[in-house]
Amino acid sequence: MKKVNAMDRAPHIAIVGVTGAVGREFLSVLAQRRFPCCAVRMLASKRSAGKTVEFKGKSHIIEQLTEDSFKGVDLALFSAGGNISKQFAPIAVETGCTVVDNSSEFRMNDGVPLIVPEVNADALEASGIALGSSPGIIANPNCSTIIMLVPVTPLHRAAGVRRMVVSTYQAVSGAGAAAMAELETQTRQVLTGEPPTCTHFTQQCAFNVFSHDSEVGPQGYNTEELKMVHETHKIWNDDSPRITATCVRVPVMRAHAESINLEFERPMDEKRAVDLLRDAPGVSIIDDRTQNRFPTPLDASGRDDVLVGRIRNDLSRNGGPGSGIDLFVCGDQLRKGAALNAVQIAEMLLS
Amino acid sequence: MKKVNAMDRAPHIAIVGVTGAVGREFLSVLAQRRFPCCAVRMLASKRSAGKTVEFKGKSHIIEQLTEDSFKGVDLALFSAGGNISKQFAPIAVETGCTVVDNSSEFRMNDGVPLIVPEVNADALEASGIALGSSPGIIANPNCSTIIMLVPVTPLHRAAGVRRMVVSTYQAVSGAGAAAMAELETQTRQVLTGEPPTCTHFTQQCAFNVFSHDSEVGPQGYNTEELKMVHETHKIWNDDSPRITATCVRVPVMRAHAESINLEFERPMDEKRAVDLLRDAPGVSIIDDRTQNRFPTPLDASGRDDVLVGRIRNDLSRNGGPGSGIDLFVCGDQLRKGAALNAVQIAEMLLS
Repeated sequence: MKKVNAMDRAPHIAIVGVTGAVGREFLSVLAQRRFPCCAVRMLASKRSAGKTVEFKGKSHIIEQLTEDSFKGVDLALFSAGGNISKQFAPIAVETGCTVVDNSSEFRMNDGVPLIVPEVNADALEASGIALGSSPGIIANPNCSTIIMLVPVTPLHRAAGVRRMVVSTYQAVSGAGAAAMAELETQTRQVLTGEPPTCTHFTQQCAFNVFSHDSEVGPQGYNTEELKMVHETHKIWNDDSPRITATCVRVPVMRAHAESINLEFERPMDEKRAVDLLRDAPGVSIIDDRTQNRFPTPLDASGRDDVLVGRIRNDLSRNGGPGSGIDLFVCGDQLRKGAALNAVQIAEMLLS
Repeated sequence: MKKVNAMDRAPHIAIVGVTGAVGREFLSVLAQRRFPCCAVRMLASKRSAGKTVEFKGKSHIIEQLTEDSFKGVDLALFSAGGNISKQFAPIAVETGCTVVDNSSEFRMNDGVPLIVPEVNADALEASGIALGSSPGIIANPNCSTIIMLVPVTPLHRAAGVRRMVVSTYQAVSGAGAAAMAELETQTRQVLTGEPPTCTHFTQQCAFNVFSHDSEVGPQGYNTEELKMVHETHKIWNDDSPRITATCVRVPVMRAHAESINLEFERPMDEKRAVDLLRDAPGVSIIDDRTQNRFPTPLDASGRDDVLVGRIRNDLSRNGGPGSGIDLFVCGDQLRKGAALNAVQIAEMLLS
């Protein structure tokens, strides 16, 4: 297999699902990071075809996604749901186009690298996928998994996570632009005394909190929680850390928060955790005990880094081996949890 | 010491802090439960004196709280903050009035029973406190502690909680009526594009989540979290369960949610946990995996019971001894978390 690590020209790219919340964020992140591309194809469903979208100050016509959409395209960023990915990503690859897929469709497939650039860039390298010469599908992990692993991985590498208990506070953006609109509409309705309309979610999200809307399996875990468990094992290439997650939606627009409790195989304390996190790529610390200032979803909104705070020795542990650390992290679900991570993967393919 | 278990007449009662969020809830709960009383004194700060408050369909004039307020009063329900409790609760007791105090002022004091009626009614009995004959201070626990212990205690009794990791999703009502008003005002401001005013909380609460606003100590835990640890130990009369908590505010009006991970000393599984919780006093189960219906703060608002769902075997445990259970619970912060629990204590004093 001939492997080419970089193309000798800027790639033609395509955005699949360009009208969605993540699709729009792809454009914003590509422009901000001056991602080199010689042409961008804007793809969406028939419903949006013919409309226009702005990118780098120019208006682009949205085309309907078809089997022919990927001719001449080197790299496609997909975020149009699992069914669209399932149908069109293999066609894209067949046509010679490498896919970075934001859906969960291929994440756990053998041979599909599941990449958080700060965590397991080596797995992309090892896959042999290369723009042009060796196209393939690269999966973008679940947003909650990415936001957890950016700060937890440096601690895991240093002391080995034995067990992790995580509870999430997830923004509605993870359910798409319609869910964000629903939160706003419902909030207005509640404030004016109207009965809130629940269309996207079955539960009221305004001034409420509810267990994540993904399907619940026979063990009582929902799909979102199981993604956090299984994707972490794949990304770390290590099934031994024991993980339990409880995923919850909160009435927040676009950044997730997570309360993370960690037990380690080897000694780890607060001071060392802070030192490791200070040097960790993609991490910013907000941890001011005197001012009671720690990360919030609003702080994280629009920011690239995952914010970490409440870094402390777990009082329910006695220190030493088996010692524990508690963290509270926030990350922009649409950026690092989705579009930014995908664009970072694309940048790795270019370099 | 002469101990009288019940008075031969309905008590004179006083509400201290009647204009606050919990104070108003005291009146609502007393009326709903037809709490017997022959007179009610409505007490508040000078600022509110002369205003009126409705109770059982009648208008009552609010009096300024003074050292003389407790003459002839048998039972006072306090919820006016720690400083007021510190100053006036001992005066009330001196005057022969028993105090049920919702502040944290006396909770950890030796000799002050800290009571959740479903959990440790025996501790009230053992204290010897009795209306009229043997007045004293009884402390109402922290709202998050109460809401956690009502469902967790039956599991603890059956299998012994070894370790507990809890993350909270706390309503703003815990910070009082002004905080509730601030959430509403801020939400309106955000929706109209105005900059949100942060008066009560230093962080924006509308469409945001933030680490609990109580003071953070040198170990990195805030006061709310330490209350959950230490009050649990006192209520269970057992310091051995290891507890860590992360307390977080969410933009919800009046009911708290908690994600609770439990490890046990002895075998415990999901089926047994469900059976125990079905029979537990003060607990209702909402746990429909097929319909994805679990407790929400809105479900819990205005309800007496603590709602429990997401009851499942912890996948990060292998079952058998040391096995674990995950729960998601919701309880009305103003009712079971405060006013209802206090009135239940008062009912025990009557019986």
